[in-house]
Amino acid sequence: MATQRILDFLATRRPDGPCLIVDLDIVEDNFNAFRKALPDSAIFYAVKANPAPEVLKLLAGLGSNFDCASVAEVEMALNAGATPRRISYGNTIKKERDIARAHQLGVALFAVDCVEEVEKVARAAPGARVFCRVLTDGEGAEWPLSRKFGCVPDMAIDVLVHANALGLVATGVSFHVGSQQTDTGAWDAAIADARFVFEALAEKGIVLTLVNMGGGFPTRYLKDVPAAAEYGRAIFASLRTHFGNRLPETIIEPGRGMVGDAGVVKAEVVLVSKKSDTDANRWVYLDIGKFGGLAETMDEAIRYPIVTRHDGGATEPCVIAGPTCDSADVLYEKTPYPLPLALTVGDEVLIEGTGAYTTTYASVAFNGFEPLRSYVI
Amino acid sequence: MATQRILDFLATRRPDGPCLIVDLDIVEDNFNAFRKALPDSAIFYAVKANPAPEVLKLLAGLGSNFDCASVAEVEMALNAGATPRRISYGNTIKKERDIARAHQLGVALFAVDCVEEVEKVARAAPGARVFCRVLTDGEGAEWPLSRKFGCVPDMAIDVLVHANALGLVATGVSFHVGSQQTDTGAWDAAIADARFVFEALAEKGIVLTLVNMGGGFPTRYLKDVPAAAEYGRAIFASLRTHFGNRLPETIIEPGRGMVGDAGVVKAEVVLVSKKSDTDANRWVYLDIGKFGGLAETMDEAIRYPIVTRHDGGATEPCVIAGPTCDSADVLYEKTPYPLPLALTVGDEVLIEGTGAYTTTYASVAFNGFEPLRSYVI
Repeated sequence: MATQRILDFLATRRPDGPCLIVDLDIVEDNFNAFRKALPDSAIFYAVKANPAPEVLKLLAGLGSNFDCASVAEVEMALNAGATPRRISYGNTIKKERDIARAHQLGVALFAVDCVEEVEKVARAAPGARVFCRVLTDGEGAEWPLSRKFGCVPDMAIDVLVHANALGLVATGVSFHVGSQQTDTGAWDAAIADARFVFEALAEKGIVLTLVNMGGGFPTRYLKDVPAAAEYGRAIFASLRTHFGNRLPETIIEPGRGMVGDAGVVKAEVVLVSKKSDTDANRWVYLDIGKFGGLAETMDEAIRYPIVTRHDGGATEPCVIAGPTCDSADVLYEKTPYPLPLALTVGDEVLIEGTGAYTTTYASVAFNGFEPLRSYVI
Repeated sequence: MATQRILDFLATRRPDGPCLIVDLDIVEDNFNAFRKALPDSAIFYAVKANPAPEVLKLLAGLGSNFDCASVAEVEMALNAGATPRRISYGNTIKKERDIARAHQLGVALFAVDCVEEVEKVARAAPGARVFCRVLTDGEGAEWPLSRKFGCVPDMAIDVLVHANALGLVATGVSFHVGSQQTDTGAWDAAIADARFVFEALAEKGIVLTLVNMGGGFPTRYLKDVPAAAEYGRAIFASLRTHFGNRLPETIIEPGRGMVGDAGVVKAEVVLVSKKSDTDANRWVYLDIGKFGGLAETMDEAIRYPIVTRHDGGATEPCVIAGPTCDSADVLYEKTPYPLPLALTVGDEVLIEGTGAYTTTYASVAFNGFEPLRSYVI
C-alpha cells in the first residue's frame, strides 16, 4: 500500500525521524469509490480521521461534505472551502457555547442523543436541524464500540419529539456500526431501528427525512476487507427492505475508509534484543509507539502491516514496542508479530494503512518526543 | 488536594476550557520529603512526569538531578539549570545519534539493558558510565509494568562485562518496581538481585558502585498511600540486609511521587444523560478525557479523586467519559464512579492528583481539541 509516489518521496526527501506520508491520489480514489458504491448518499468525511488541510481541500473540491467533532474541525472544513451547509456537527457531546459558535458560522445540522442536548441546541442554534443517534451493538467491528454515543430507539422518539416542540427541525436518525466494521450486513439492524423511529414520529405528525448511516468502512490492514461496492450493495438492499420505495435521504461518514490506506508511516528500528538467553521472542523497538501516533494498537485492536527490506527471508515472532519510557508503550505482545530475523538496529520500516487516526492521536511531547510529522503529497 | 493557592488562582483567573494548575510549593514539599526519607540517595526527578520549565527550574535549584528519556528532555534539564553531570539518560531504547548528541552535551550516565545498546553507547559516548536495568515483576503497582525494560540478572552480568570490555565504566544496576507502587516492600527482591549482580561482577574484577532504585513512589488518589518516610525506612532496611555495611551509592527517580499531588485539573461537565429510561447509570461527559490528558485512566488503572460543588449530597454511580467522538474515550465504566445527583451541565469539577503524566500525554489535536493547557504557580 506504499504507493510509488510515497516510495519516491521517501527516497528523495529522506525525512529524519518517524513521519506519515499521505498520497492524495488514493484519497481521491476512495472518495470516488464511495460515490460510486452509494450514489444516492451524501458523503460526509469524518474530519477527525485525518484533518490535514490538503486532505480537506481535496475532498471539498471533489464535493464532499464534512462530519465535524468540534468547532475547531468546523473551522478547518470552512477553511478548506466547504460551505457551512455542507457541515454536520456530529458530536453528541457539545458545550452550549460551542453550539452557538458553530451556529454563528452557519452550521445548521447537529447530532443529539438525549433531551439535555436538544435543549442546548434549541437555545444556542434555534431552528437548526437535528438527528438523533441510536445505540448499536458494534458486533463485527475491530475498534471497540462502547455505549458512549446514542440512546435506545424508544428514547430517540422522545428526543426528536422534544426537539420538534422546541422549534428545531427533527430531521432523522443516525447510528454508527463500529469502526473498522468488516461485516457488510452490520448496517441492517440499525436501518430497521431507524425505520422504527421514522414510523413512530410519523404517527405524531413529524416527518423525518434523513438517515445518517455513519462510518465504519474499513481499511485493509493484514486481512482483506470487502470493497466499498459490497458495502454499497448490502446497505442499499437494507434500505430497500426497511423503507421500500420511500427511501430517505442518506448520509455516510467515512473516515478510516477514506484515508486509512492512503498513508504510510516511515519508522526506524531503534533496538532489537532479548530479555534472557532463553527468551522465546525478540523485542523490536521502533521510534514510534502508542503515544507517537499508533494509539489504535491499544489492546492490539488494529494490527498494521509492517514492511521491511528483509521481507521474504526467515521470520521470528517478535514483541514490538515504542521508544518511550512507559511500560504501556507496547504495540504487539499478546499476539507476537512475525518479523524478519535479519531485521536490525537502524533499519527503516514502513507501517502501512496509517493514514487515519494517527497524527492527531499523537501526544504533544510525551518523553520529549515530537508529535508525528506528516507530509501530504 | 486542591491547595488554597490553586483555588485562588481559579477564582481570580477563571481560565476557560480544561487546564492543569500545578502548585510549586507542593513540589518543593515533596522534594524535601524524599530528601529526608532517603538522605543518602541522590534524587533524579523523572522529567517525563511533568517537564514544565517552572517545575524543572525549581527542582534544579533545590539540588535535584534529572532522569531523562530523550535528548529533548536532556535539553530541558540543561535549560532549567542542571549541569550535564546531574543528568541520567535513563531510557534503555536510544538511537545511536541521540546518544551521541547527549554525549556532546556532556551527559555521561546511560541506561542499558542489552549488549546491542551497550555497543551503541560505546561507539557514541566512549568512556561513559552505564548501568544495566534488570527486570522486576511489578507486583503491587497500579500502573501496569510490562517486560519492556530490563533483562534477567544473569544477562545483566554479561551486559556489564561487555560494557567494561568496550571501555565503558560498568557502574551498576537499575530496576523499577512499577509506577504507583503501594507496597513499600516491593524494592527488596530487586535490591537482592542488584547485590547478586554486584557479586558476580566483583568475581570478575569489576567493581560496581551504583544501585538506581528507580521510581514507583505513589501519589494519593482515592486511597491512602504510605508516606515517603515509610518507603525510605523499608528501602534502607533492604539495602542493609543485602549490602550490609558496604552500601552502594543509590539513586531514586521519583516522578509521580514528586508532582502528582501538586496538580489539579479544572474541567467542566458538558452533558449528563441516560441511554434509556431504565438505565442504571447516568453518563457524565467532561470536557477532558483519555486523549486530552487523562490517558492513565486506560483500563481504569488510575482512579482520580473528583471534587464537585455538590459534594456531601446524595450520589449515584456514573459512567464518566471524555468529549471526543471516540468510543474508547471513556474514563470509568467497568467500575462506575459515584458522583452527586445534583451534578449538572456546566458545573466545574476538580480532578485531583493530576500533576503527573497528564499534560504530555495529551494528544496534539484529536477531534480538534487543543492539548491540555497548564499553569504553574
